[in-house]
Amino acid sequence: MNDASRIWTAALLVIGDEILSGRTHDKNIAQVATWLNVQGIRLKEVRVVADDMAAIVEAVNALRARNDYLFTTGGIGPTHDDITVDAVAAALGVEVVIHPDARAMLEAYYAPRGGVNEARLRMARVPAGASLIENALSGAPGIAVANIHLLAGVPHIAAEMLAALTGKLEGGLPVLSATIGCWVTESEVADLLRETEQTHAGCQIGSYPFFREGRVGANFVIRSIDQRVIDACAADLVAGLGALGRTGVPGGI
Amino acid sequence: MNDASRIWTAALLVIGDEILSGRTHDKNIAQVATWLNVQGIRLKEVRVVADDMAAIVEAVNALRARNDYLFTTGGIGPTHDDITVDAVAAALGVEVVIHPDARAMLEAYYAPRGGVNEARLRMARVPAGASLIENALSGAPGIAVANIHLLAGVPHIAAEMLAALTGKLEGGLPVLSATIGCWVTESEVADLLRETEQTHAGCQIGSYPFFREGRVGANFVIRSIDQRVIDACAADLVAGLGALGRTGVPGGI
Repeated sequence: MNDASRIWTAALLVIGDEILSGRTHDKNIAQVATWLNVQGIRLKEVRVVADDMAAIVEAVNALRARNDYLFTTGGIGPTHDDITVDAVAAALGVEVVIHPDARAMLEAYYAPRGGVNEARLRMARVPAGASLIENALSGAPGIAVANIHLLAGVPHIAAEMLAALTGKLEGGLPVLSATIGCWVTESEVADLLRETEQTHAGCQIGSYPFFREGRVGANFVIRSIDQRVIDACAADLVAGLGALGRTGVPGGI
Repeated sequence: MNDASRIWTAALLVIGDEILSGRTHDKNIAQVATWLNVQGIRLKEVRVVADDMAAIVEAVNALRARNDYLFTTGGIGPTHDDITVDAVAAALGVEVVIHPDARAMLEAYYAPRGGVNEARLRMARVPAGASLIENALSGAPGIAVANIHLLAGVPHIAAEMLAALTGKLEGGLPVLSATIGCWVTESEVADLLRETEQTHAGCQIGSYPFFREGRVGANFVIRSIDQRVIDACAADLVAGLGALGRTGVPGGI
């Protein structure tokens, strides 16, 4: 296996009672997935756990061991339910320490906002050996330790942290995709999809049905790291749909 | 522990490349979580895996063993990437069979739509011993087997299947909640939140910061199975915020 074919993988651990209660609709899965793909890293699995020490430690250890990277979102704020730093430190078997740069960032940020107190200083706590991920928005940084990146749970703050990491993680070739839409029921084209995928080694075709304006349709998403494979597969799929009397719409419906 | 204090738990396994690629924003986590809570069942953990047999089997076996219920969404359609039935059967060590009632439902549904073909008949395949979950929308039923419920990935079809299951699963007391909003930074009230939670046994307080109209605020969500505990905790929290010169807004901001 040469470098170009090395597949880099990541897992995401979403931490927070609010997702499991249904109160908050998660936005970080799609955000992290999309960002990872641009970095040439594939999101292999996601877990969502509660603000529970044992559950976080178990998931961190399972996920970090079998992926190149683990990202977490949530639980790095100043309140009693923010226990991600402690859980990651426990999973790694290291102490929690105050990071001097994080303390300085928080002191600068809060100087005109009432100063640093004990709760705010919690956001300078990191697993020993960690470095910081810049967060221009709120002064409280993300944290990188071992192969783990701890991001905020608030999606637009997580986005800032991802922006700070852009281009800095080693990855492989990004997965490219093309979409063909069609006003057709999936079950009419199931054989065509399977056969077209088999004909083009190195691509996958996903089929995503929808119901709109009282009509049934589907989008077929072709994915590969090779644009030529995608183009050939898409051309065959459109031709195959045409042979069935259907029109494939490049770009999707 | 008596019956009233028995806590019923569930896990959710979301199956689909489209979630992990970032193409599709998951809506089933929040939908299933909200529905489960009304049934008196707590969603303890969620995993998202690809359309990959080994990954699904591993997750099914891990999650079904340690929860009262496991729900899956996705991968029960007619196309080649729909492998949930095969994976659940493999996890349970049973055969895949054609369910006669599912076949009859599909034949009735597709009679005016071109009839049943091989792909459509795939949606009558179930793990041996399964029963069906009604789906009035598209003719293809959900599947119940052992403690596992297989739902569609399309959110409004999954909703139909959840509606068919409403009130039919054994559960405990639903978790109740109340929200208090406040224009305050979390770090100013971290001590108050921790102390208020500790004072009221049987409740948890979650803190969810937000940024709106250029201002910082947070919603504090109090959860318990006992409305009296919630009411007492909410009253103390509002009083505590008042003592800090802040106004707690019942219902949240």
